[in-house]
Amino acid sequence: MRIGILTIVGVGLIGGSLGLAARQRGLAVHVIGAGRRRESLEQARQLGAVDEISLDLDQAVRRAEVAVFCTPVDQIARQVLSAAPGCSSGTLLTDTGSTKAALLHAVESGLPPGVAFVGSHPLAGSEKRGPEHAQAHLFQGRLTIVTRTARTDPAALERIVSFWQALGSRVQILDPQEHDRALALTSHLPHLVASALAGLLPPELRELAATGFRDTTRVASGDPSLWTGIFKQNRASVLEVLDRLGEHLAGFRAALEADDSALINDWLAQGKRGRDALGI
Amino acid sequence: MRIGILTIVGVGLIGGSLGLAARQRGLAVHVIGAGRRRESLEQARQLGAVDEISLDLDQAVRRAEVAVFCTPVDQIARQVLSAAPGCSSGTLLTDTGSTKAALLHAVESGLPPGVAFVGSHPLAGSEKRGPEHAQAHLFQGRLTIVTRTARTDPAALERIVSFWQALGSRVQILDPQEHDRALALTSHLPHLVASALAGLLPPELRELAATGFRDTTRVASGDPSLWTGIFKQNRASVLEVLDRLGEHLAGFRAALEADDSALINDWLAQGKRGRDALGI
Repeated sequence: MRIGILTIVGVGLIGGSLGLAARQRGLAVHVIGAGRRRESLEQARQLGAVDEISLDLDQAVRRAEVAVFCTPVDQIARQVLSAAPGCSSGTLLTDTGSTKAALLHAVESGLPPGVAFVGSHPLAGSEKRGPEHAQAHLFQGRLTIVTRTARTDPAALERIVSFWQALGSRVQILDPQEHDRALALTSHLPHLVASALAGLLPPELRELAATGFRDTTRVASGDPSLWTGIFKQNRASVLEVLDRLGEHLAGFRAALEADDSALINDWLAQGKRGRDALGI
Repeated sequence: MRIGILTIVGVGLIGGSLGLAARQRGLAVHVIGAGRRRESLEQARQLGAVDEISLDLDQAVRRAEVAVFCTPVDQIARQVLSAAPGCSSGTLLTDTGSTKAALLHAVESGLPPGVAFVGSHPLAGSEKRGPEHAQAHLFQGRLTIVTRTARTDPAALERIVSFWQALGSRVQILDPQEHDRALALTSHLPHLVASALAGLLPPELRELAATGFRDTTRVASGDPSLWTGIFKQNRASVLEVLDRLGEHLAGFRAALEADDSALINDWLAQGKRGRDALGI
């Protein structure tokens, strides 16, 4: 795969890493970084993540052969629908957002003929933000979910799969709803419990929070406004997994109240089996 | 500080690390490793964690100037009370258990005159088990809680503080109940939520569990029988923090159901402040 102009909208940790990887691998002839803040864009250019910068999102996307929206999930649909009408036929649009169903629903009916949007979600990143944390190998060996809907153009889907593979990623294709239900459990719920634990810790007990607490709560350092968008976009699934967590913890609570060693042990063993199956 | 004979009861990750650190730092003239399984003891000796091994716990403790019980929390009191009557006056006993109040309550009334027990809890370790994971630097720079009760002998307390400091640890003195209430929140609750998340993950979603899920659930790999003992010994405090977690999550749930961006953001920001305050 070889792209003429690749435009990256939003050059933070994900967008910046995408630029570094694309340039290092020669995936694009020219990489444009587009965004709102000149400072971040300049930094991304200095780090070698993009060749050119632009504060005009629509214009930068219209010049692209492939454009990737790496902005907060609650902004992507609006940005795509704003830029798409001026895109030439054959333009391929994708994103890196953590939620997919609401986005696909909002975007798909508003695209001009010949302009394709395929949703993507690379399962990579961290609690950090900004191009200064970008890494060329961020997607290497990681899984990227690419979504397929009834309206998805098969050729566009195939190109987006190749795009992520060219960046070193493995790819799995899912329906957007399937994606959101799965991520509610594998990503959004862990963020919630981490944030809950960290939020409950009073300052005087910080000294007593050792590696276990630190590991368990690491993701709580993620940006609250980014995560607010994610939770709002995946509300139904998040509410559902929160209820499942509550029921599961209630099972433990009952076993502990009954002082039932076998039940407590079984409950913990279920968690250990689940975690051990993941490896490191 | 220089100990004649140091006996370590239980030569797993913690006991083995204790032996390695004590021998490397010349803290004891002779280190005896005592336990039930000859295989672990032989392994600890081969790794250089102990000079001598013994399957007779009482006998090994009675020969010691200082003995440290690094066995599961639900076994320590029985082992201490079994060995103490044969100890000579001036013997100093301590432990490394994750809960303290029930242990101190059980042990303190049963000690012969001249034999002192001071509770300890080094906030170090991992989800791994066995002497093969022992590390000489495990306690280096970590915090060890040493407990003080109305019955604690001040000279014994001072020696135990020096003991942990000689192993490279920082020391904080707490009342056993205070310790247990604090650890319910900083260690036992994180273990529960990690285990709950890992237990809820169906096999077909394992592929979608990225670094966030892995960090958040790492501690769930801990040994279920060890943790059953910990939860049972700290039942009241664990039930209390579980309820607090439930209430805190209910606050998030209500904000999400109401689709209230400001409330969701504030709740997440509280978690971020708590986590950021801990550093890495």
